Parts: sequence; C-alpha cells; structure tokens
Amino acid sequence: MLLRMSSLFLRTLRDDPADAEVPSHKLLVRAGYVRRVAPGIYSWLPLGMHVLKNVESIVRDEMNKMGGQEVLFPALLPREYYEATGRWTEYGDTLFRLKDRKGADYLLGPTHEELFADMVKGEYSSYKDYPVTLYQIQTKYRDEARPRAGILRGREFLMKDSYSFDLDDDGLKRSYEQHREAYIKTFDRLGIRYKIVFATSGAMGGSASEEFLAPTPTGEDTFVACHSCGYAANAEAVTTPAPAARPVAGAGAQQVLDTPDTPTIETLVDHVNTVHGLSITAADTLKNIVVKITTPGSDKVETLIVGIPGDREVDFKRLEAALAPGEPAIFEAEDFAKHPGLVRGYIGPQVLKDLGIRYLVDPRVVTGTAWVTGANEPGKHAVNVVAGRDFTPDGTIEAAEVRAGDACPRCGSELSIDRGIEIGHIFQLGRKYADAAGLDALGPDGKPIRITMGSYGIGVSRAVAVIAEQAHDQLGLVWPREVAPADVHIVGTGKENQIEVALQLAEELTAKGLRVLVDDRAGVSPGVKFKDAELLGLPTILVVGRGLSTGVVELRDRASGTKEEIPLAEATDRILAACS
Amino acid sequence: MLLRMSSLFLRTLRDDPADAEVPSHKLLVRAGYVRRVAPGIYSWLPLGMHVLKNVESIVRDEMNKMGGQEVLFPALLPREYYEATGRWTEYGDTLFRLKDRKGADYLLGPTHEELFADMVKGEYSSYKDYPVTLYQIQTKYRDEARPRAGILRGREFLMKDSYSFDLDDDGLKRSYEQHREAYIKTFDRLGIRYKIVFATSGAMGGSASEEFLAPTPTGEDTFVACHSCGYAANAEAVTTPAPAARPVAGAGAQQVLDTPDTPTIETLVDHVNTVHGLSITAADTLKNIVVKITTPGSDKVETLIVGIPGDREVDFKRLEAALAPGEPAIFEAEDFAKHPGLVRGYIGPQVLKDLGIRYLVDPRVVTGTAWVTGANEPGKHAVNVVAGRDFTPDGTIEAAEVRAGDACPRCGSELSIDRGIEIGHIFQLGRKYADAAGLDALGPDGKPIRITMGSYGIGVSRAVAVIAEQAHDQLGLVWPREVAPADVHIVGTGKENQIEVALQLAEELTAKGLRVLVDDRAGVSPGVKFKDAELLGLPTILVVGRGLSTGVVELRDRASGTKEEIPLAEATDRILAACS
Repeated sequence: MLLRMSSLFLRTLRDDPADAEVPSHKLLVRAGYVRRVAPGIYSWLPLGMHVLKNVESIVRDEMNKMGGQEVLFPALLPREYYEATGRWTEYGDTLFRLKDRKGADYLLGPTHEELFADMVKGEYSSYKDYPVTLYQIQTKYRDEARPRAGILRGREFLMKDSYSFDLDDDGLKRSYEQHREAYIKTFDRLGIRYKIVFATSGAMGGSASEEFLAPTPTGEDTFVACHSCGYAANAEAVTTPAPAARPVAGAGAQQVLDTPDTPTIETLVDHVNTVHGLSITAADTLKNIVVKITTPGSDKVETLIVGIPGDREVDFKRLEAALAPGEPAIFEAEDFAKHPGLVRGYIGPQVLKDLGIRYLVDPRVVTGTAWVTGANEPGKHAVNVVAGRDFTPDGTIEAAEVRAGDACPRCGSELSIDRGIEIGHIFQLGRKYADAAGLDALGPDGKPIRITMGSYGIGVSRAVAVIAEQAHDQLGLVWPREVAPADVHIVGTGKENQIEVALQLAEELTAKGLRVLVDDRAGVSPGVKFKDAELLGLPTILVVGRGLSTGVVELRDRASGTKEEIPLAEATDRILAACS
Repeated sequence: MLLRMSSLFLRTLRDDPADAEVPSHKLLVRAGYVRRVAPGIYSWLPLGMHVLKNVESIVRDEMNKMGGQEVLFPALLPREYYEATGRWTEYGDTLFRLKDRKGADYLLGPTHEELFADMVKGEYSSYKDYPVTLYQIQTKYRDEARPRAGILRGREFLMKDSYSFDLDDDGLKRSYEQHREAYIKTFDRLGIRYKIVFATSGAMGGSASEEFLAPTPTGEDTFVACHSCGYAANAEAVTTPAPAARPVAGAGAQQVLDTPDTPTIETLVDHVNTVHGLSITAADTLKNIVVKITTPGSDKVETLIVGIPGDREVDFKRLEAALAPGEPAIFEAEDFAKHPGLVRGYIGPQVLKDLGIRYLVDPRVVTGTAWVTGANEPGKHAVNVVAGRDFTPDGTIEAAEVRAGDACPRCGSELSIDRGIEIGHIFQLGRKYADAAGLDALGPDGKPIRITMGSYGIGVSRAVAVIAEQAHDQLGLVWPREVAPADVHIVGTGKENQIEVALQLAEELTAKGLRVLVDDRAGVSPGVKFKDAELLGLPTILVVGRGLSTGVVELRDRASGTKEEIPLAEATDRILAACS
C-alpha cells in the first residue's frame, strides 16, 4: 500500500476544533482522520479509514481464532423483537425509533441480543448443535443524552458484538473465558493499556460481568483497584464491606436537639459540637436523600429515600446502576409540597415506616449503629438514632461515592481510584433472552433444554479514539504499528532529487510488503512536512533531505523521538528491521 | 481458511421459502446464506458473509486501483444537507425519516451526494487540489414501496458509492471513463454477465449516464439492444426516432363520425372499418391518456394528457422517468367529474388548448400526421385530425412502450428487448450538488471555479443476488470462484477413515492458501452431503468416499458437472490446479 501526500485527501489543521475537549478528539480532527457531521455523528477521512479498518481486522481475526462465526444483522429492525423483551420501552429516549411508509414501527439497533437468539432458534434444534458463538461487526445507534468527545461516545458507532449459546452454566462459563482470552489478545494487539474490572450488568440482566477499561484521565468511568489482592471494579459495581452488626441494647437514648439553620452536614456538625458539646464528625451523621423513580413505559413514580453517612456524597451513576431499569431523578420543591411529612433539610428515618416511603441505606448503616440525623421538624436533629431500634431500613443500596483509601471488599486493603474508558464488556447473560425467544435445544432424552447466553462487545470505532487518547504527545498522534494508517512516513524535502528518491524508496518498501505514506508534495516547506509527520503519528519516519547529497538520510522513531543519520543504501533494510 | 460443516452455523432447507419468487431468493435462503428479518430487510449467515465480503473486497480493490480514496459517512444524517438540495421532500416516501431525542430531524441516507460535496468543500480550496475521487462502501436505506426478491431489492442494503470532483467538463469525462473501466473490471471479476446501456439520470439531475445491467429473465429493468450498431439503452432512456414533418396543406378535411360503444382502440378500429368503410389499423389512431401529477413537498396537482399511437400501451416507468421528480398517477372517476370538458373514452386533442390542459405527444406525432381520435362527445370520433392544423402539442414525451423490432434511434435497425437487473450506475452529475454546497476551487487567476461532479454506484449486496440469479442450475448455486464462500468443498463420507482423510486434505490445502469447506459431519448420509454440496455451490468438490480403500477419490466440477476418479496422492495438486 502506497499513499502519496500529493494526492491524499487530507488537510491537517493548525488549531484545535472549538468543540473538542479531550486529546483524541482534538488530534483526530486536526490530523484529518475524522470530521463532525452532527452531534455524536462523524465521517471518516482516508487516514481514519485505514486505522478503523486495521482495528476492525484485528478484532475479526481474534474472533475467528476463538471459533466465532461472523454474521451480519440489519441495523433497521422491526419493533416486535424488542417488544418481546420489554426493551422497546426500557431503552427510553436512547432508542432511535422510526416508522416506515406503511406506519410500521422500527428502531435502529443499539444491541442485538433479541435478533441473535431468534436466529439461533431458527437454525438449530438439537443439543448436538451446541455450543455456538456468533458475532458481527456492525454500525450501531444510541441516542445518547450527552454525546461527547468526538468518536469516543458517538450516536452512530461501529461495534463488534458477539453472543455465545450454551446448553448449561458450565458451558457458558467456558464461552465467557474464551471471550475473555480473545479480548486480552485483541486489546494487546491494539496496543491499548487496559484493566479488567468487575462490572454491573446494568439493563442487560445476567450475572457475571467484566469490563475492559482503558485508564485515561478523561475517562467517563470510574474504577477502583486493590494493589494488594488484584481486585478491580467499576465504581458502579464496587460493593461496600458492611461492618458487623452491634447489639441494640447498649445504645443510649434518642434525644432531639434544637439545631436551627443547619441545613447542611457541615453546619450541623459545627452546631452540635460547639452548641451542644458533642464531638462528632460528618461520618457520624446520617444524610437522607429523597429521589423519585420512573420506569420507561410506565406512568408510576415511586418516592425513595436513600440514607448514607454524611461524610459521603451520593454517586448518581452508582445510584442509577443500583436502581436500573428504574430511572432516579431529583426530588423537586413541588414534590416536597406533595409530601408534607418530609421536612426538607431535616429528614430522619424514624417516621418513614409511618409515611409508607421506601428507605434504603448504605451497607455501613448496620443494626446497632447510632446516628445524628434529622428529627423531621424544622430546625431540629436527633442524636442516638439507632438502626434496628429507631428505624428499620427496607434494604441496602450502593449509592455512596467510592473514595481512594476505602477498604477493598475482598481483602480489606486500601483501594486506589482511577478513571477509564470502557473498551470491552463481557458478560454471562443467562436465559433472559432465550426465555423471551423460547430458545430450546432438544436434549438427548427428548426433553427441551433452555439455552443460556453470553454477550460480549468491543467498541471498534471507540477503540480508535482510545488508542489516540493513550498514544499521543504534545506534537501529535503516536500510533502503535499494527493500527497505524501506514508503517512508515517518508518525507522528501529539498529542491534537488529528494522527492524522486523518496518515491523510489517508497516503491521499494511497498514491493516488500510495507504500508508506506510518502510526502511528495512540491512547494511545501520542510518545517510543515515535519510537523505533519509528527501530527499524523506513523511509527517510523524517514527524512530524505539535505543530507542526500552526501548519501545520508535520517531515520526517526516517532514514539521515542530518536533520530539517526544512516546511509541511503541501508535505508530499506533499516526500515524493514524497524517495522518487523 | 478452513470451515467445517460439523460446526458451521448452517442449516440447509429442503423447500423453497413461501415468499420467494426468483431463483436467487429461493436458493440463497435454502442454502443458508441469508434470512429474512422484515420486508426488504435481511440477515447474513456465515456463508453469505463470506460471499458478501468477497464481493466487497473486489469492489474495494478495483476502486483503489483506479485511484479512489475510501472514506465513510454516517448513515444517520441531519435533515439540513438534504433540505439544501430539495431532496428531503423530493424523495417522498422512499426516505426513512426520524427525530432524535431533542426533536431534530434526521434521515437514513439513501445516497450521499450532499455529504461528499460538503466534505470536499471542507478540505479542499485550490485548483491544485483537484481532481479527486472519493468512495465509501456503506449500508444504505430506501423505503421501497415494493421490496422484493430477497436481497435483490432491499430496504437496507450495502452499496459502494463514489463521487468524482473535477475542475471542468473534460475532467469529468475522464473521471467518468475511469469509473467505466473500473466497473468493467469489477463486474468481470465478479463473474457477472452484463450490458452497459444508456440510462436516464432520473431524480439525480445531470447529463451522460449509463447503467450496468445484468440480463436475467426476472429483472425489473427493461432494456433494448441493437445488434447492428451496438446501441443499448434502458427502456426509460430509449428515444423514439421522429419521422419527418409533412405539409399540412394536402391533408383531407376533419370529419366527425358516430362511433357508439367504442371505448377501446380495438372496438373503434373495428367499427370505423366495418361501418364507415375506412381501412385503418390501431397505429392510425391517437390515444389520449389523462394523468395527474403531484410533486413531493407541494400541494399542487397538475392535469396532463399524453397522446400516443393507439397500437402502443403507455409504459408507466418511462412515463415516470420522463416526468421525474413529478409523480404521475391515474386520473380517477372523481377527477373526471371535476373536468366536464374531458369526455372519458372519447377525448381528442382538438379542445385541449381551450380547456387549458397541457398536452404532450409521442415523438411519432409530428406535424402533418393525420389521426383518428376522440371528438370530445360521447360516442363520437373524428378522422383526419391533423397535427399542426387541428391541434398543436405542448411538446413530446417518451411514454409509449418500446417493442422488439422498433427502430434503433442510432442506425434504424431493429431493436431487441430484454430484461435485466441494475448492478451499477455511472453518471455525470454536473454542478447541481456543487451549486447547492457552494463548492468552488480558487483558480490560478484567483477567481472561483465551480466544481463538477460525477456519481457512481455499485449495489454490493445486490451483486450477491445477481450472481446467484445468473449462476445456478436446478441443483443449486454455482459460484464463480473469486466470490465463492470457499474454493473447494471436500466431502468425507463413509464409516472407515474417510472423514479423517478429508480433514487431512483440508488442512493441507488450507496450508497452501486455499479456502476450504470440509463436510466432516458424522451420521449424515452420502446423499444428503452430495445434495448440500450441490446446493451450496462451491466451484470444486472432492469426494473422499468408498473408493478410498483403493486409494481413489472423486474430483467434481460444480459448473460442468464433470466427475473424475483420481488417485488420492494426486488430489492436492489437482485441486490446486483446478483453483488456479
């Protein structure tokens, strides 16, 4: 493959695009890889296409090696399939819906569990047919509320999704492990640094679930890691170790204090310590947050109160994950107006049973713990409010923020906390979609066996952005070789025969199987050519410039920045060695 | 590549699908290449994916060789682009339209002229940048009124569309010729038999336009060919040679005859010949057809009358092509009720000027020709109604059916007529889309040059069906080698070591670079395996069966049906030779 800059459809930009916040977005636009068409919707220019195709073919190769069989579903899908599993409504506004000329309802597929289950049902019937793993690499659609960061979180994106079909749970576990191995190989080849973390299964249902997260400061996902035992989890999936319950008997009596003008935890702690002579911290207070929960497709609105220690904020993403497919929203002034029993700023759990409001608490709020909390009267708080004595929660919920230094739920060591981007997700779906489709195999005894499924995704277009996010410096992109648009960037610069020689070298290297980009532009200054080479980010750069008169060219390594003058006669061999 | 039937996700069907009418649809479903999801919307199973990918890579290869640069646009597009060119409304019901969560209008791209023009405008500015040819291979959407024949005319389909951008008309002609050559190479490699025919440009605008049509009895397009001069054209593009005009002076006087109960041409001819002693044929009568024309996005309805010789039917597709983007529809009883001047069954052109109704005639209706036509009174016709004397048309229209034996518009010889499927379309768009986008290059003199575009399409998924349509027999599919899902189908059958040997051969051939499908299924009868091999249609079949005990295997050629017993030791070399 030989690309010539003189005819390549490419214009690099000197300035960052105005709407770009993260490095990958800035650089992919500046270097002419992608262009914006609409919010979360992008076009790919030729260099971007080369990278996208390279990523796609690595993903395909590893899927084939693990025994996956490639199929392709439509993106335009009739409503019925998603109606059967409830996802037509559950997906809410995230689903792009449309009607055809006859008024029939369609959607643009966000993920294809329903279709895969239906396809396997159509072809397979006997237990002898299983297991099977099918995959597709396909354009998917999600009407994200906040598309962001260029192709990192788009509304139209390329995804590899695969599904395993097994006769029993052991088979599912094997299929899951095979995918896990294939994903490790895939991301290693893509040159992405990643962590495998426990994940929640979210709206998909199912049990075991892990995410491949690429650590980057701009990541949307927060994850914890324990450097002692190796535990790692998405913040949404972190479980809080509960302390042991204590006897209720020894606790002091509940007491109501006047605490005027203490609507926040800070003012409350300060007030009770200075005015009432207590000695508490925010961690001794119990903060009660009211939310209302709606469910897509239903008109019901439920009121829920979440109790967490006052030294922690509510993590709304953890709260959402814990309540899915229910959707929590802020309890507004008009909602409070409808619930006169809830005294804003002074809510305590003592009265919630009587009010008939569901109450879920942080796992730290175990029986026997005593709290300073609202007394359900304006300007009053209660101390020694004891769980299991003065209130009984309806259950626990993982809604409090996770912090660096929190205890690892597995070994108790301190957790570190980082941000990352989800690049892959594997999980054991179980029988939810097989149940909806009625997907059975006829067993050896003539009885039906309900199939169990796994679901596995890789964001193909997103991976391009993630690689750019991890592999760049202040000068531009720094592509890992296997995904780079070409192996080598030959820069011809000078007014003698430099461009001619650059082109000869390019043809030689192309003949030897390398993918070559040659800057053969006339009338462009060396400075501009060097800047472009750095911005475009091919791993190896060869400069055919002033030194050519003495038979010397310059070999540069984009990643390390090393430069070396070498004899022209050795250029081909040296480049081949660098690219092998 | 090695595919094993024992694990391949494939179930062949014994019966044709109930909704299938054409051979490609029946066979692609029966042989397990595609499955229906909704009207005009299909999924691809593994074998189908192999064929689709092979076709796609041939198309990509030839586009790259001709200097095309691959890009990729979204399928989900904001309304603005298509609003600017009027196609948001012109496309009518064929466009899938939808709204996002914010209520903004989007469409699913049916073709991408607007986006390509906009992209080039964004990157290029100088005349030195041109020419450039860009292409994409992408899923497209059209809400066809009558999706049919499986993947032959789908609503979601894979297409290669490319666009050339030139500074002047000569450049456009060169780009057009380069595409024409590339298409010839592409379709030759795909093993498709095709004709290149003149085409109308339809709703796209522009001038020179040719279609690549694959002749098949089930084709939706009708085309003519002249075996004398080589002229060939889509029926919609055929021009009717007009006879020379004659002097009006010598014509006889117009005369009105009583012709009761003669609502059809047959009854009219019969009546005037037997009752009034004339001696005319249907070709001497002038038939006047009323249509109403609507235009997408407009409320106006125009009434039009089309006059054609009575021995010909109106070809509605030709009429539609002639009136596009206007959409003709039948003039119903209630429409006649609103136009009392139009006497149904007895309309003549003599009064149309007075009625203010537009009148277009077949090119054969030249000045001086005399016709038997309606007298605009119930039960009455007029004879000697002379064009240019008794009526003056507002112009001509190509709306009459084309027939085998009609005169070639180029050389006058007899035309033959055939049916075919459109597999490619190339045309010189001109400046319509550049005008809408304001796409200029800055010329050497500092003045802007308006760019001229060409537009070129190949139906990639359709090509799979077209190949199947042309390459099959009563036993099944007969793939050309380069598009076949694999080169060779090795059938192992028997209870000794046949399957083992078949697998060994398969591995050997795979190691030598062949793509191999091996039937290693246990417990499946030889008859079923042979039938499947014929149905699946791989070009070379090797049977490792009963003869193995004497060291003999059978080499079959799927297309010719020849069978030859050969020594096992020669099998590898013989297959390699057959596949080269």
